[in-house]
Amino acid sequence: MDMTDLQMMGKRAASAKPFLQRMSQEEKDNALHHGAELLVQDASEILAANELDMEAARKNGMSAGMLDRLKLTKERIEAMAEGLRQIAALPDCIGEIMEEFERPNGLKIRKVRVPMGVIGMIYEARPNVTADAFGLCFKTGNAVILKGGSDALHSNAAVVRVLRRALEDLHIPSDVLQLIEDTDRQVTVAFMKLKEYVDLLIPRGSAGLIRSVVENSTIPVIETGTGNCHVYVDRDADLDMAAGIIYNAKTQRIGVCNACESLVVHRDVREAFLPRLKEVLAPENVELRGDEGTLEILPDCTPAAEADFGTEYLDYILSIKTVDSLDDAISHINKYNTKHSECIVTENAEAAERFLNDIDAACVYWNASTRFTDGYEFGFGAEIGISTQKLHARGPMGLKELTSYKYTIAGNGQVRK
Amino acid sequence: MDMTDLQMMGKRAASAKPFLQRMSQEEKDNALHHGAELLVQDASEILAANELDMEAARKNGMSAGMLDRLKLTKERIEAMAEGLRQIAALPDCIGEIMEEFERPNGLKIRKVRVPMGVIGMIYEARPNVTADAFGLCFKTGNAVILKGGSDALHSNAAVVRVLRRALEDLHIPSDVLQLIEDTDRQVTVAFMKLKEYVDLLIPRGSAGLIRSVVENSTIPVIETGTGNCHVYVDRDADLDMAAGIIYNAKTQRIGVCNACESLVVHRDVREAFLPRLKEVLAPENVELRGDEGTLEILPDCTPAAEADFGTEYLDYILSIKTVDSLDDAISHINKYNTKHSECIVTENAEAAERFLNDIDAACVYWNASTRFTDGYEFGFGAEIGISTQKLHARGPMGLKELTSYKYTIAGNGQVRK
Repeated sequence: MDMTDLQMMGKRAASAKPFLQRMSQEEKDNALHHGAELLVQDASEILAANELDMEAARKNGMSAGMLDRLKLTKERIEAMAEGLRQIAALPDCIGEIMEEFERPNGLKIRKVRVPMGVIGMIYEARPNVTADAFGLCFKTGNAVILKGGSDALHSNAAVVRVLRRALEDLHIPSDVLQLIEDTDRQVTVAFMKLKEYVDLLIPRGSAGLIRSVVENSTIPVIETGTGNCHVYVDRDADLDMAAGIIYNAKTQRIGVCNACESLVVHRDVREAFLPRLKEVLAPENVELRGDEGTLEILPDCTPAAEADFGTEYLDYILSIKTVDSLDDAISHINKYNTKHSECIVTENAEAAERFLNDIDAACVYWNASTRFTDGYEFGFGAEIGISTQKLHARGPMGLKELTSYKYTIAGNGQVRK
Repeated sequence: MDMTDLQMMGKRAASAKPFLQRMSQEEKDNALHHGAELLVQDASEILAANELDMEAARKNGMSAGMLDRLKLTKERIEAMAEGLRQIAALPDCIGEIMEEFERPNGLKIRKVRVPMGVIGMIYEARPNVTADAFGLCFKTGNAVILKGGSDALHSNAAVVRVLRRALEDLHIPSDVLQLIEDTDRQVTVAFMKLKEYVDLLIPRGSAGLIRSVVENSTIPVIETGTGNCHVYVDRDADLDMAAGIIYNAKTQRIGVCNACESLVVHRDVREAFLPRLKEVLAPENVELRGDEGTLEILPDCTPAAEADFGTEYLDYILSIKTVDSLDDAISHINKYNTKHSECIVTENAEAAERFLNDIDAACVYWNASTRFTDGYEFGFGAEIGISTQKLHARGPMGLKELTSYKYTIAGNGQVRK
């Protein structure tokens, strides 16, 4: 695939925009249902393609955990289809009049919600992201160009083939869904610069992938995912509640961006709290890495290096920092966090207010687990990712976060004086 | 200035964030008034610095028009001060609760408007932008790092010096306003990559500057300004209204991004309209560059090359394209426009609706001049620029467009199941 092919993909996606923009929500939802139907009906085609990926992955010595993420089954394909049906059931937001006002000169100005246009998505994850990303973008009237992980190439290509057939059945231009099948890194980098045709680029995957996109892209990017999340146990914390929240945020699912990676604890409660926490976390074999103030209480815990406080472990490890005050806790967290999700446990409303105000993060919790940072948990009905930047969208992104707006202005011949 | 100095500037700006976030609107408005006061009081210091810039510019053979843009006078400094006072008079938006909802598990979620954090601005324009950019960013609780044009270096430095004195008088950390005084291009490029400390970068200036920022920046960018704006005169247009709108959009101010650069005219009205338009534009000596369909009616007009349709002239030149249908007009405009401002002149509501829906631009007009795309004309009371991208903000950007949001979530020990 050369750059001309990539340009042509962009051009085809862009040329589908007016068609998409004119589709009614009912037509879009019908297409999502038909896509779900074909995924189930043609599951054997997808499973055969997946087997090719699995074979290659086994040969390359992929780990058991990764193989499980890559593997598709009838049930997993049914879950993909169900995902599309759930997206179809969500309310429409395109065309919503967000604001409407009249100027003294008689101009009537409307701010109207419109699709973003063409969305690019680069991801490393499981093949189900392919159907999911299509569903969310299509529901919001966007064309999408996908670049999935090379390990899942055959699986992704099969899913896209089936969904494009569903679109064609309904006489919808199938170029609203395209997949880059070339695994050459140069093609991926060129994709990040397809600014003429792509309005928004969303990377989903490792910190390395996201960094590469941020560094190379000329298309506006929404950064997602990295989460070095803290729980701060205040002097006035309910210590049982604190232990419960940390147990949940650390161990309920370790490989996710909203898991807790670091505990910050007020010096006045460390003696009462740290041994208790150690006991609570013991059944899960969580390794504790503490600063000096921690070691004074838990002498057999691993000493934390400076680097620990900046590390998203995604593992059964928790760093611990002791602080002398709420201010120190806030400074520490604002220094090391990735602007994702942070929590204070306290019964002191004033301290909580300070924390909620001063911590610079997408989601700041008072007495609740950081694990709730999630589009479904927030009630958005869908999630395309968790934004850790401040431009456009912050925190869990649902359907509305895949839209833009335009101003339409109606007059009767007004000119500017 | 080396990279460490730049890092330190970023660090100082970021460390002022919690202070800014805790300031009341009244405190911020007082500081804006005090800044305005000192600008007027210390005008002679600014004028002396400006004279150094003027001298160097004259030696370098700067054009009279550019010299006029660079020049400061007592009146122009008074206008800068008045700008700050006007910003102080605008309503506050920081802290606004944008949404508030409770989840079935009892979590109370609030979406709260917060400052963006640290805003970087790279501009080429007149020294008054310095005070203006500070005022808008400060009002919305943001620290700002400015990189102005090298021609205005002494003037910008003097304005910043005076405003920082005003902040210090009120015990506000003056690092909320910093100016990069090094004119080395490498420093500017390094500034575009100061992602660790800068949350948003806004370039204001030529298409070349904006392109350079988009290509080099790792910080999220809002693209502003380039406007290849069209007026489409439909078959059902009121031709007098059409001529009036084009006269205004083309000639009222030629060097601005919302000026009309191209006329698209329906074949059925070209005979009635084009000679009339030629007459209307004659007093302003507007050069017409037409396609074949235009030349058939106006044989002595300049033939338009393909490149004309993609050119933002910012001059007394208008390209003309004849089309056979509304669809062709929409296709032509979507192909060549810069997503800024587009207009249809028609008495046909159905045609207008199609145009308003299908044209991909920040502002789409029906029977009004494209010149209205402006924060003040929209009633925003301020303007930091016109966004031509779809991420975050589109069209005129006022104060709200310099803000982000965070979610605060209050619970009583909830954990995720």
